[in-house]
Amino acid sequence: MLNEMVTRVLEEFKRREIEKVFLVGCGGSSALMYASKYAMDHEAKTIDSDLYSSNEFIHRHPAKLGEKSLVILCSHYGKTPETVNAARFAREKGALTVSLTYEPDSPLAEASEFVILYQEGKEHPFLNDAHAIMYELVFGLLHIKEGNPKYDALIEALSHLRPVIEKAKEQALPAAQAFGRAYQDATNIYTMASGANYGIAYWFAICILMEMQWIHSHAIHAGEYFHGPFEILDKEVPMIQLVGLDETRPLEERSLGFSRQYGDNIITLDAKDFDLTGVDDRVKGYIAPLVLHRVLRVYAEELAHARNHPLTTRRYMWKVAY
Amino acid sequence: MLNEMVTRVLEEFKRREIEKVFLVGCGGSSALMYASKYAMDHEAKTIDSDLYSSNEFIHRHPAKLGEKSLVILCSHYGKTPETVNAARFAREKGALTVSLTYEPDSPLAEASEFVILYQEGKEHPFLNDAHAIMYELVFGLLHIKEGNPKYDALIEALSHLRPVIEKAKEQALPAAQAFGRAYQDATNIYTMASGANYGIAYWFAICILMEMQWIHSHAIHAGEYFHGPFEILDKEVPMIQLVGLDETRPLEERSLGFSRQYGDNIITLDAKDFDLTGVDDRVKGYIAPLVLHRVLRVYAEELAHARNHPLTTRRYMWKVAY
Repeated sequence: MLNEMVTRVLEEFKRREIEKVFLVGCGGSSALMYASKYAMDHEAKTIDSDLYSSNEFIHRHPAKLGEKSLVILCSHYGKTPETVNAARFAREKGALTVSLTYEPDSPLAEASEFVILYQEGKEHPFLNDAHAIMYELVFGLLHIKEGNPKYDALIEALSHLRPVIEKAKEQALPAAQAFGRAYQDATNIYTMASGANYGIAYWFAICILMEMQWIHSHAIHAGEYFHGPFEILDKEVPMIQLVGLDETRPLEERSLGFSRQYGDNIITLDAKDFDLTGVDDRVKGYIAPLVLHRVLRVYAEELAHARNHPLTTRRYMWKVAY
Repeated sequence: MLNEMVTRVLEEFKRREIEKVFLVGCGGSSALMYASKYAMDHEAKTIDSDLYSSNEFIHRHPAKLGEKSLVILCSHYGKTPETVNAARFAREKGALTVSLTYEPDSPLAEASEFVILYQEGKEHPFLNDAHAIMYELVFGLLHIKEGNPKYDALIEALSHLRPVIEKAKEQALPAAQAFGRAYQDATNIYTMASGANYGIAYWFAICILMEMQWIHSHAIHAGEYFHGPFEILDKEVPMIQLVGLDETRPLEERSLGFSRQYGDNIITLDAKDFDLTGVDDRVKGYIAPLVLHRVLRVYAEELAHARNHPLTTRRYMWKVAY
């Protein structure tokens, strides 16, 4: 049940030599690519990958960017100027550019060689958001170039994910409401994760807490925690700990154990508490961040509601020059 | 004027096939590798690189790790368990392991195929710290494998850096003292940078502010700023903006411009304000973080002094089990 635009891109992958993948986006669109970088690192035997914020990508100008590069870009409305410029830059260098966006007539769609439109709505029977399409592309590439054995399980898992996510959101609602009430006056909330889930922790910190709620935040890497950040922990400081199902789960369990011992405001979202029916064990680690992402969105809504600070509130974004 | 242990490692590079470099460490030791990752990305035409916190590296288990890998590790005292384990793990996979440490008899030194001891003291005529040795290794590799044209200029620059740094620290002292006085009651201080300097912003956030001063922090990437984090900015929030000399300087100038327009507590450290005599223009971008690092250390000391909270204060590190 692949998006037909994905199928066209996979056909192109068969025709092109691809040595390196660049994952390029800004903010929330960049954050959802972290799981794909994790998958590439853990799975890819021959193909390298890097992930950059769009403007960093352009100015850093990786020496390896060229005709054997695949550059995957993402921007929800397709208007993010840095990402549009990154697509143009990559295309000039001869790279294969594939952009994910919601808007078919956007500048990003125009700037890219291939465009994949994603849909967020519930009316679609299978999960077809940017997160899912990223995986279809990355695992599709690894399947085509290296015969990756998890591709079919991954695609199958995505086709079962809509009800899994709906059920997880419903299950999480009471805890999310309690979270909103408990932390409505918090001025600082940390998030923490590792592996495939780190991008989701980063998204919640910078897009939800800092951008949409004006709450100080920072996504701490669970492995880095014990090498500096954990000294900030006291009984009061709130920390949201994600616990996923990938190979780095021991890192998240360790940071959680410590935080619970010395902190009184530790909020845990553990992917194993949700029913992942239809998801093969071999790909559960990759699917966990997609579920945690949607569950955290419920936490965001409940926090915004409790604080009477709608998620759409902005003081600078789209309002002033920057 | 290369450290003779570096010379031995460069000889080994000539004998080995190296396709990929992994930069592996924790906390401050990881942070000082970011500049080398930047250099690899911008310079390396054939060799890929990745940077991981040590435990993430082990558990993520990159599929490409193998006999054609170079793994560079760093731990000041050579005792960081995750980094020692990462060296063992990489060596088991057949990778060439090179460790940087201050301690010749440490577990890390024992676990690694090659060890380079660095010295921090002023008694050494040329800069010989981990930051400098990282560059000697990375540019040495690129010189040997790809004929990188900046190698000689980089080594030459490092040999002139001791007086450059001493002068920069002296020049920065009054501003650092003013910083300490002005922000002694701050509960939250952000740092911001991009490119080669991001690691230094990260180090100051997690090792100085969070670990040693128990002040909330987060190193914001200057390019990501406008895609979420900037909404946290108000007149009060303190932000330390690093401005370097590499290709991403426009990102740092842009975030600085915005922060100054809407914030009243923006602290700027611009590498162009320091006298980099002896540093060739072609490598100034790479050298800037080494200077900013040492200057920021003065800021750390002055902040600690003003707050009467010594940089050695800990509540958990080396005191409790974790």
